[in-house]
Amino acid sequence: MTVSTGITRQDCVTLDAADPLAHYRSKFELPSGVIYLDGNSLGVLPKDAVARANDVISREWGTDLIASWNTNDWFDLPVRIGGKLARLLGGSAGACVATDTTSINVFKAVGAALDIQAQDAPSRKVIISERENFPTDLYMVEGLMKFLDRGYELRLIDDEDSLDAALDADVAVVLLTQVNYRSGRLWDMARVTRKIQDAGALSIWDLCHSAGAVPINLDDANADFVVGCTYKYLNGGPGSPAFIWVADRHVNRAWQPLAGWWGHANPFDMSVSYEPSQGIRRFLVGTQPIISLATMEVGVDIALSVDESELRKKSLALTSLFMQLVEERIPNHPLTLVTPLDEKERGSHVSLRHPDGFAVMKALIAHGVIGDYREPEVLRFGITPLYIGYADVWDAVETLRRVLDEELWRAPEFQIRGAVT
Amino acid sequence: MTVSTGITRQDCVTLDAADPLAHYRSKFELPSGVIYLDGNSLGVLPKDAVARANDVISREWGTDLIASWNTNDWFDLPVRIGGKLARLLGGSAGACVATDTTSINVFKAVGAALDIQAQDAPSRKVIISERENFPTDLYMVEGLMKFLDRGYELRLIDDEDSLDAALDADVAVVLLTQVNYRSGRLWDMARVTRKIQDAGALSIWDLCHSAGAVPINLDDANADFVVGCTYKYLNGGPGSPAFIWVADRHVNRAWQPLAGWWGHANPFDMSVSYEPSQGIRRFLVGTQPIISLATMEVGVDIALSVDESELRKKSLALTSLFMQLVEERIPNHPLTLVTPLDEKERGSHVSLRHPDGFAVMKALIAHGVIGDYREPEVLRFGITPLYIGYADVWDAVETLRRVLDEELWRAPEFQIRGAVT
Repeated sequence: MTVSTGITRQDCVTLDAADPLAHYRSKFELPSGVIYLDGNSLGVLPKDAVARANDVISREWGTDLIASWNTNDWFDLPVRIGGKLARLLGGSAGACVATDTTSINVFKAVGAALDIQAQDAPSRKVIISERENFPTDLYMVEGLMKFLDRGYELRLIDDEDSLDAALDADVAVVLLTQVNYRSGRLWDMARVTRKIQDAGALSIWDLCHSAGAVPINLDDANADFVVGCTYKYLNGGPGSPAFIWVADRHVNRAWQPLAGWWGHANPFDMSVSYEPSQGIRRFLVGTQPIISLATMEVGVDIALSVDESELRKKSLALTSLFMQLVEERIPNHPLTLVTPLDEKERGSHVSLRHPDGFAVMKALIAHGVIGDYREPEVLRFGITPLYIGYADVWDAVETLRRVLDEELWRAPEFQIRGAVT
Repeated sequence: MTVSTGITRQDCVTLDAADPLAHYRSKFELPSGVIYLDGNSLGVLPKDAVARANDVISREWGTDLIASWNTNDWFDLPVRIGGKLARLLGGSAGACVATDTTSINVFKAVGAALDIQAQDAPSRKVIISERENFPTDLYMVEGLMKFLDRGYELRLIDDEDSLDAALDADVAVVLLTQVNYRSGRLWDMARVTRKIQDAGALSIWDLCHSAGAVPINLDDANADFVVGCTYKYLNGGPGSPAFIWVADRHVNRAWQPLAGWWGHANPFDMSVSYEPSQGIRRFLVGTQPIISLATMEVGVDIALSVDESELRKKSLALTSLFMQLVEERIPNHPLTLVTPLDEKERGSHVSLRHPDGFAVMKALIAHGVIGDYREPEVLRFGITPLYIGYADVWDAVETLRRVLDEELWRAPEFQIRGAVT
C-alpha cells in the first residue's frame, strides 16, 4: 500500500464543511451506500421532481385532460423551458426550445446550417467534425449526407491544430462537442467559433457534456447553432427531451428539414401547406412527451439557481483533487490520465485508462463507486459539483486504490463482458 | 323542444348494464362531473399508470440510476413495447418500435420508402397523400421534398376514386391516414394497400386515429410501413412516444435518414461510422424519454387485453347511437353530419358541422361535455368504447340539444376566439 504524505480524508471533510454549494446536495435523492460518479451520463433525481411528475400525471393529465394544453401550458412547455435554458447558457442573442433528442436536433441544426450555406456559399460542401466526437453526432451527419446525396463530405479532425488545417474554403459547417464524452477535454468555444466563422463556416456546438457542468456564454462566443441534452448535468431524468438553440441572425433563414406541425406558423389553421413559424418555434416538430418534459424543468430550475463561478470553481477543485489523489495514492498501477491537467481544457469528468478497465469498473461498482466504462479501456468518473463532495472523491479514489492494490478486479465475476452501465 | 319517440335514456342505461366491456371503465381515472368525448385527442389516465410512473421515477431513476438501462430494461423499452404494439396491430410479418413522434416517424418511413423505390424504380417521383390528411403528415413530406430537392412531387387526392385516378407509373409512395382526424372516415386498409402495391407503389399508413379504436390486421393488409401515436385511443399519456412498424421484407433494404446511435448495429462500440442494425432497431435514433415511454406501456397493456370485436361492436353501437339521437332529438338546427353513416367507413369519433361550431363547442365544454373543435366549423366527439357508455352518449346529445335549443352558445363568453382544447 502507498503511504501518502499528501492530502488526508480529514482535509476533504474540512473542505466539504466550507463548501458554499454544499446545501444543493439536499435537493437531490442520492442512492444510499454508494458514491455516484455517473451524473455525466444520467443525473440524479431532484426531490421536487417526484411531486412535479405526480402533479402532471394525476392533475394535469388525469383531471384537467385535454384542457391542459392551454390551462397547464403544455403547448408552451418547449418554449418556456427553452427560454430558461437560453438564460442558463447566456444566449440572449438567440432562442432555444426543449424538444426531441440530441440526435434529432443535430439533424435539424446541420440541415438548417447547410441550407443557409447553400444560399450564401453553395460551393462549400464539407462538414467538419471530430473523430472522437460522440458517435451519434457523426452518424446523424453521415445519414443526412447519404440521404441528400449531393456531394457533401465529412472531414474528421483530431484537435485544434488539425481543425485549423482543415478550415478551408470548402467548409460549410463545423460540428463540435464542447466537452468530449470520453476524455473530458473542453474546447474554447469563443476562440474556436471565431476561427470557424473567420473561415466562412457555421458552427454547431453540442453541449451534452457541458450544459450545467461548465459556465457557458453563447453570446460571448457568438454561437450560431447549439444542441444538447438535459439528462446529464441538468438532472432532467432519463431521456428527458434535448434542446436546440439558434442565433437570431440565422433562425428565419432556413427551413429545418423536419417540418412538423408544431413548427408551423399557425398549426391550428390546419392548412395543407407548411409555413414555418417565425423564430425558434420552427425547430419544433411534433407533440412532445409531456410527463418527461415537465419533470425535466425541475432540474433546469435548480441549475438556473446556481452561482456558475462557484460551480466551476468546485468542479475544478474536485477533478483536480481526484487527479492528485490518484497520482499520490495509486502510483504503482498502469493508470493513464486521459483528461487534461490544464484546467482551461477540462470539463467536469475525469477519465483514466487501465488495460483491464472493464473489469476494474465492474469491481468498482460492486464496491460502491458508480462510474462507467467506455471503449477502449476508459474508466469514466463524473464529478457533479451539485451533489458530490470532497470526501466522496477521497472515498472513491480509496476504493479504486483497494480494487487495484488488492486486485479485487481479478475476481471471475468481473471478467464477463457485457454492459457496464 | 323536440319530443322524441325513439330511444330513451332508460334504454341506454339498460344497454350499459349489459355491456361486456363495462368493467374497463374502472381501469381509468375519469374526470368527475363531465362527459369526456375527447379521447380521440388525449386518452384518459389509466389508474395503474400512476404507480408505474412513480416506480420509474422513484426507484428506477432515483435509486437504481444508471444501472436501470440494463436492470430495468430501459434499453429495450422501445422494442419491448413495440412488440406489444405489433401484436395489437396484427403485424407479425414485420416489427415495431415505440419511439419519437408521429411526425418524425413519418419522415423515417417516407425516407426509407423513397430509398427503396430509388433502388427499384428510380423514375417514380410522386408521393400521394390526402388533401384532408392530418397536416403534419403533409408538412413532413413537404419538408423532406424541399430538403432532398430532387424533383419529388406531392400529389393530393380527396377520396378513393381520386386515388385510383392518381395511381400511375410515377407514384413511389402513398401516405394515408386510416381514420381521418376530422371526418372520422375509415379507409379499407387491405383493399387500398393492394391497389397501391398493384400500381407499383409502397404504402405508408398513419394509424393515429385508429390504433386502439378499430381492429387492425397489418398482416391481412400486407402493410409496408405504418406509423401512429399512442396518446389517443391507447391512453399512453400526453405526447407519449409514437410508433413505427415496418414489414420484414423492407426493413433491411434502406437506411432511414435519421441515422442515430440507437439504430446502430453496435452502439457501444462507439465506432466512427454508422452501420444500421439489422431489423427494426435501425428505426431508432436517440435516447427516449423513459418516464413518458414506460408510463405509456400501461395503456398499451390494457388495449392488448381487450376483445377487438367487442370493442368494434360497441364503438359502432355508440357512434350510431350518437348519430341517431342527434337526428331524432335535434332536428331543427343547422347540424350537418360529417362522419360516414356506413359503418364500414367509420372510425370511432363523430363529427358534426355547425356554422357557429366554435361557440357551440365552447358552450358544450362549459356545460360538461368535452369534445373539441377543428376548423372549419367541425364539432368532434371522440367515442372511446373502453370508458364511454350508452347513457354518456345520451347525456352528451341531450346537452348538445340544450345548448342549441336554448341558444346557450350565444353567451358572449363563448364568442371569443382562441384555443378550444
